[in-house]
Amino acid sequence: MEQVFIIKLGGQVLDHPAVIASVLDQVAALQQPTIVVHGGGKVATRLGTRLGIEPQYHQGRRITDADTLELVTMVYAGLINKQLVAQLQQRGVNAIGLTGADANLIPAVKRPVREVDFGWVGDVQTKAIPVESWQLFLNAKLLPVVAPITHNQQGQLLNTNADTIAASIAVALSATFEVHLVYCFDMPGVMRDIQDASSLVRSLNPAGYQLLREEGCLSDGILPKLDNAFAAIHQGVRSVILLSPDHLHTCLDESPFGTQITA
Amino acid sequence: MEQVFIIKLGGQVLDHPAVIASVLDQVAALQQPTIVVHGGGKVATRLGTRLGIEPQYHQGRRITDADTLELVTMVYAGLINKQLVAQLQQRGVNAIGLTGADANLIPAVKRPVREVDFGWVGDVQTKAIPVESWQLFLNAKLLPVVAPITHNQQGQLLNTNADTIAASIAVALSATFEVHLVYCFDMPGVMRDIQDASSLVRSLNPAGYQLLREEGCLSDGILPKLDNAFAAIHQGVRSVILLSPDHLHTCLDESPFGTQITA
Repeated sequence: MEQVFIIKLGGQVLDHPAVIASVLDQVAALQQPTIVVHGGGKVATRLGTRLGIEPQYHQGRRITDADTLELVTMVYAGLINKQLVAQLQQRGVNAIGLTGADANLIPAVKRPVREVDFGWVGDVQTKAIPVESWQLFLNAKLLPVVAPITHNQQGQLLNTNADTIAASIAVALSATFEVHLVYCFDMPGVMRDIQDASSLVRSLNPAGYQLLREEGCLSDGILPKLDNAFAAIHQGVRSVILLSPDHLHTCLDESPFGTQITA
Repeated sequence: MEQVFIIKLGGQVLDHPAVIASVLDQVAALQQPTIVVHGGGKVATRLGTRLGIEPQYHQGRRITDADTLELVTMVYAGLINKQLVAQLQQRGVNAIGLTGADANLIPAVKRPVREVDFGWVGDVQTKAIPVESWQLFLNAKLLPVVAPITHNQQGQLLNTNADTIAASIAVALSATFEVHLVYCFDMPGVMRDIQDASSLVRSLNPAGYQLLREEGCLSDGILPKLDNAFAAIHQGVRSVILLSPDHLHTCLDESPFGTQITA
């Protein structure tokens, strides 16, 4: 099967122009078909503050009212997405910026209200992802750059966690491609002690993950990422790696420098 | 040659949800391959005011400083574009939102500084438009929805007049397709007296245009639109029509209800 790399760029990675430049250089150097998925939390938060829209979170996930949905659609699908596309084009990469609404690439449903109403937040319908449309872009040597906005096929845009989008695309494409999912974020990987670079966990299986959680070693922010990572590896994704912008290029290596997720 | 309809939706058309719904219903009813190009002036102006960014114009064209470029990228390529895409998807149309940076669809150069510095404004390089990429989308039964943002292939996004973008795509595709260019805006067409519906000019050639200009009948806003329209008809576009949202569906008729531009 042909390889596809799905690289999720965390919001923090996108806050520093020099880091963006380095990451895009590394993406441009990849020869394999690649899909980039990006977040963008801090830019949206800053603009929201200027507009009087205060961010609300529940367990690390943003609650999305109507104003916040407009805000993230502007910042994620507009500003960040098109800046990344233009900068990849500058590097000779034929990037194309997309959301889940475009070509119906990521169908979703509004998250059902249970104990919390997350507002206009989408849960991806992974089985409904149209693999043939993704293939159209990849076959045409286009590099999709995906903003974390989906839709419900009824005209409603939905804010959707970028880690989940990356994992969902990875799972959907796994029947057709050998998919490698890379979470590029502001840490070297999973660490036992966030202050100690030598505490990097180079390989993590479900039992090890359970142990780290029980030991209280993991920050709240990394838990949904790891949940997505293990869900992906259990649904046919060939490899999942967590690493920092400095080591993105090692994702092609047999032993990438970061945390490898194993089943 | 296969027909392609390029429909430019003016900013004013996009200010009223009921008008948007009607226009998108009419677009969804078209069987021919279609490309939608949209503006979005007032939404950007309103958001700019909230952010303390005041619009500046010279001869009807916005001057684009760095803040304004971010603003229009967010509003045009993010908010308006993705809302239109989601609402077309709702109507069963496989829409895909794009800017000129995406897939390098509309290469441009920063407008040279002469008597006025327009800032980050792009002049389209019509001859460099990659027709084969547009064909890729049309052949795949995708309906491109184009926001008026281009790029210079060097990493810089550029604000670009939507009328000009529509005309440039129309000209570029005319070697391969029978292109019909439709300007859908807030008037029935070209009018001798803006207060008198019966003064609609059903057909306009260059001599008639010259006469209307000399008589002072035309508003400043319509001049660049007509300049684009005549440039398109003189460069191989099969038909150019100006009409209102009420009569968009007549663009398929032998005699559409609006102003037909003739060579």
